[in-house]
Amino acid sequence: MKPFKMVSTEYKSEPTRIHIPAPGGNDVIIGEGYCTMIAGPCAVESSEAYLELAVMLQHLGVHILRGGLFKPRTSPYSFKGLGQSGLDIMAEARSITGLPVITEVMDVRDLDVLYDTVDILQVGSRNMQNYSLLEELGQLDKPILLKRGLSATIEEWLLAAEYIVSGGNEQVILCERGIRTFEPYTRNTVDIGAVPLIKQLSHLPIIVDPSHATGKWEMVRPIAKAAIAAGADGLMIEVHQDPDRALSDGKQSLTPENFSRLYEQVIRLAMLEDKEVLKNKG
Amino acid sequence: MKPFKMVSTEYKSEPTRIHIPAPGGNDVIIGEGYCTMIAGPCAVESSEAYLELAVMLQHLGVHILRGGLFKPRTSPYSFKGLGQSGLDIMAEARSITGLPVITEVMDVRDLDVLYDTVDILQVGSRNMQNYSLLEELGQLDKPILLKRGLSATIEEWLLAAEYIVSGGNEQVILCERGIRTFEPYTRNTVDIGAVPLIKQLSHLPIIVDPSHATGKWEMVRPIAKAAIAAGADGLMIEVHQDPDRALSDGKQSLTPENFSRLYEQVIRLAMLEDKEVLKNKG
Amino acid sequence: MKPFKMVSTEYKSEPTRIHIPAPGGNDVIIGEGYCTMIAGPCAVESSEAYLELAVMLQHLGVHILRGGLFKPRTSPYSFKGLGQSGLDIMAEARSITGLPVITEVMDVRDLDVLYDTVDILQVGSRNMQNYSLLEELGQLDKPILLKRGLSATIEEWLLAAEYIVSGGNEQVILCERGIRTFEPYTRNTVDIGAVPLIKQLSHLPIIVDPSHATGKWEMVRPIAKAAIAAGADGLMIEVHQDPDRALSDGKQSLTPENFSRLYEQVIRLAMLEDKEVLKNKG
Amino acid sequence: MKPFKMVSTEYKSEPTRIHIPAPGGNDVIIGEGYCTMIAGPCAVESSEAYLELAVMLQHLGVHILRGGLFKPRTSPYSFKGLGQSGLDIMAEARSITGLPVITEVMDVRDLDVLYDTVDILQVGSRNMQNYSLLEELGQLDKPILLKRGLSATIEEWLLAAEYIVSGGNEQVILCERGIRTFEPYTRNTVDIGAVPLIKQLSHLPIIVDPSHATGKWEMVRPIAKAAIAAGADGLMIEVHQDPDRALSDGKQSLTPENFSRLYEQVIRLAMLEDKEVLKNKG
Repeated sequence: MKPFKMVSTEYKSEPTRIHIPAPGGNDVIIGEGYCTMIAGPCAVESSEAYLELAVMLQHLGVHILRGGLFKPRTSPYSFKGLGQSGLDIMAEARSITGLPVITEVMDVRDLDVLYDTVDILQVGSRNMQNYSLLEELGQLDKPILLKRGLSATIEEWLLAAEYIVSGGNEQVILCERGIRTFEPYTRNTVDIGAVPLIKQLSHLPIIVDPSHATGKWEMVRPIAKAAIAAGADGLMIEVHQDPDRALSDGKQSLTPENFSRLYEQVIRLAMLEDKEVLKNKG
Repeated sequence: MKPFKMVSTEYKSEPTRIHIPAPGGNDVIIGEGYCTMIAGPCAVESSEAYLELAVMLQHLGVHILRGGLFKPRTSPYSFKGLGQSGLDIMAEARSITGLPVITEVMDVRDLDVLYDTVDILQVGSRNMQNYSLLEELGQLDKPILLKRGLSATIEEWLLAAEYIVSGGNEQVILCERGIRTFEPYTRNTVDIGAVPLIKQLSHLPIIVDPSHATGKWEMVRPIAKAAIAAGADGLMIEVHQDPDRALSDGKQSLTPENFSRLYEQVIRLAMLEDKEVLKNKG
Repeated sequence: MKPFKMVSTEYKSEPTRIHIPAPGGNDVIIGEGYCTMIAGPCAVESSEAYLELAVMLQHLGVHILRGGLFKPRTSPYSFKGLGQSGLDIMAEARSITGLPVITEVMDVRDLDVLYDTVDILQVGSRNMQNYSLLEELGQLDKPILLKRGLSATIEEWLLAAEYIVSGGNEQVILCERGIRTFEPYTRNTVDIGAVPLIKQLSHLPIIVDPSHATGKWEMVRPIAKAAIAAGADGLMIEVHQDPDRALSDGKQSLTPENFSRLYEQVIRLAMLEDKEVLKNKG
Repeated sequence: MKPFKMVSTEYKSEPTRIHIPAPGGNDVIIGEGYCTMIAGPCAVESSEAYLELAVMLQHLGVHILRGGLFKPRTSPYSFKGLGQSGLDIMAEARSITGLPVITEVMDVRDLDVLYDTVDILQVGSRNMQNYSLLEELGQLDKPILLKRGLSATIEEWLLAAEYIVSGGNEQVILCERGIRTFEPYTRNTVDIGAVPLIKQLSHLPIIVDPSHATGKWEMVRPIAKAAIAAGADGLMIEVHQDPDRALSDGKQSLTPENFSRLYEQVIRLAMLEDKEVLKNKG
């Protein structure tokens, strides 16, 4: 018997589609039948750069803007994000573009301030089993993007989602972002099989983050395409105007030009798969 | 510096395309710009069943027939294949359909008898580092399909190919078939990132075997599509008329109906990717 | 260059020995030259059982009592510990036996209440990269036992320790508790090589938890002995009067009789290795 | 139900002890209650060096001499061993010291020539699932040392042993030599838990190879000690007079001085564990 309940297809056979209210007016939908594009830099680094990029991405048809404010970094000596001041920049980008925004929450004590500005709260892979955090998120009426832990099994991942859903918040989006294996060429190994498996086991939507999954920008496009062909409901892609100078994750970030090329091909694929690539009306 | 030489894109920038002479007349090509379909049962089980399936697959447009004769089995008590008598069946299927055939070689002492009948010799994942065998294959003028070892790194895999190529045989086709990870839901974890990585590092063609990579027939179609979207040059798929009664690997085998559905979708994808799905004129 | 600094042997060549003030009067030392035994049940389940076991373990010469109050459980439907009421039981056991106590902290909001009663705060493997928590622990003047994450590299583990030490708290004890691999027979694979590696790279003490590392009580004794022979500074062992009825982790818990047998053998080994097995004067 | 039969403790509860006839007269025993030491260089490199080292090791009380003749190398461009000419050197060392010798067999076609000179035939980790080879070895009346594959589960390893035993050769010694994990600091991760697990599941003896398992000579001694404390029946250690100039595996080889220090400590541990460290009467 499967240990997860409320997230399973046995509990609810109809695929869950999550509506993200866009400040610009139109909802963005994440779920079966749609292909949703989330993009932005790894971290919000400066007001000027973030706003410029946000407008660019809006014009390319991106549906949701990402940007890290509180960054979980392996070393205590790495850049950890702008925190509160970055949140103000994000709020401005949200207002200018009319697009919903997503950022990671690492600490239950940050929830209040993030709740008011952010449209989707992200749980990073290192916190997938931070159960205190998951329980708090279960109390909120806000969509949660739950990244798979670096070495989490499919079952543990769905049980982490169960923590949120059983707490009362059904708006959970799963995000495959690569698992840890023996292979040293790539930062992680993207588990593309997770896409059809999750579709079979759960009614929750699943998207793929090919940037973190590979750690190499050259691989982002083929993996993004593979994700959509395998049935993913969307993508989360890191984009930076000047990847070589990014304060974090530059090697896996696409330039806007490369992102645009990726997006064109993804759109053609999504159409072949009968997925609606949402028109962003923001 | 990379430890592999002759298989690298530095050594030869032009993608290698391998011509498989078909007994029916037309060559089958495996390599960049083509999408080649290899299909058949895990093991040749009986003359009647194999010939019936071979003709079915020919009519569906499959380019190469597979079928195991000498099966590497984890347990000494499992069905190990028909051996020599299976080879006669395979030769008959080859003659009737005009299609090239591929089977696995496990033992250097079987090379002579296989050489005369078989069009492509397969090295299984358990023998990827059987260097005595690789050295013998380097002496042959016959295409070799080299499966990735269960826990082989990309580098070790390319070095295994280097054994064959440096011996004088440049006709090596790489085949990703899943790696071993901590995830228990699937038999293996398909490393879809291997496709763009190999394309970047090597001029050799790469195909994907989604049947062994997942071990679950329900996952074969999405993973096959993902492979083509990621840039793979072809697929190897297990098909069986009655998977529940297969003597090996039934759980991962498609019925001919399901295979036909997969192939249709793969063809549409391949066309989107500007890959020629070879017409089989055999 | 190594990315960790203050925890490295380059920064401080003298091994760090951590003094745990025992309520009964004598300090317990964890570090090079000592073999420290931490034991107790996975979770504090009832006052009667915990106090009885605590006295038993005191008489067997255990130096520190363990017991879970806030349990991180993979499923939201599992027993999550007694929380605050368990803390009162632990305080009583501490007072009766005179032994220091250790329990896991999962949430920064629990720190205040735990700080007053508990002698060592444990960071569980799921929270090894919960950087908000690590930063808070860096502010405290209380020893921290930092378990290795399930798939954390040695480097990531030492960087997690660096978070605490660079924050101002140098009293960090590392605890190897098994890593995730492909092997299904055991819950985890104990990385015994981590013991000599940590000794080479860092001045911090390292102990081993063979109960979680194996998940099978039959393996606890041989692995405990291997840990001491490899140079570990101590052990953390799960003991339960009635493992079959334990509310969590029964399969990996030793009966007091089996624990006593283990401890005798460990003491002989520790003496051979010139490690002082502390006399508990509590 | 367990898939292996003849190697299991259900089939035969009495531990198997394997007698290796020593050319010098006294048998060497490998099995429960004994601690057997196998040592020598990774590869036989020259007559002078090998004979000198062999005599040194004999005087230190080593029971069996190792030395690679046919080396499985990841790259086709690495030193592959002296082959037949190395065998003559090994035969001379065997004759001079009176000690049994062990070397790896990679190819069924080498069996005849090796059979006459060598006392134990080793199957390397890359060939653990080379079933053609295993089947041939099952026909011989010669002890076989079967190394665990790099990513072989305990079950697959025992099934590989079952191939040999079910073929008629019951003289199989298992050798744990490290498994592949995500950890990059060490070449492999020694699975120390394999020792008690094999003791529980099988009657066959198990030894540990800490040299290959770690890839670092500094770790060989602590891991060797851990292996004996965990219950291993012996050790296989790489020793080289000048590790920096070794043609293969220099980084993991001990100098004779360091080996001597290791052996002293192992002997003390073995005595504590009531294992007889065989007197070498050769």
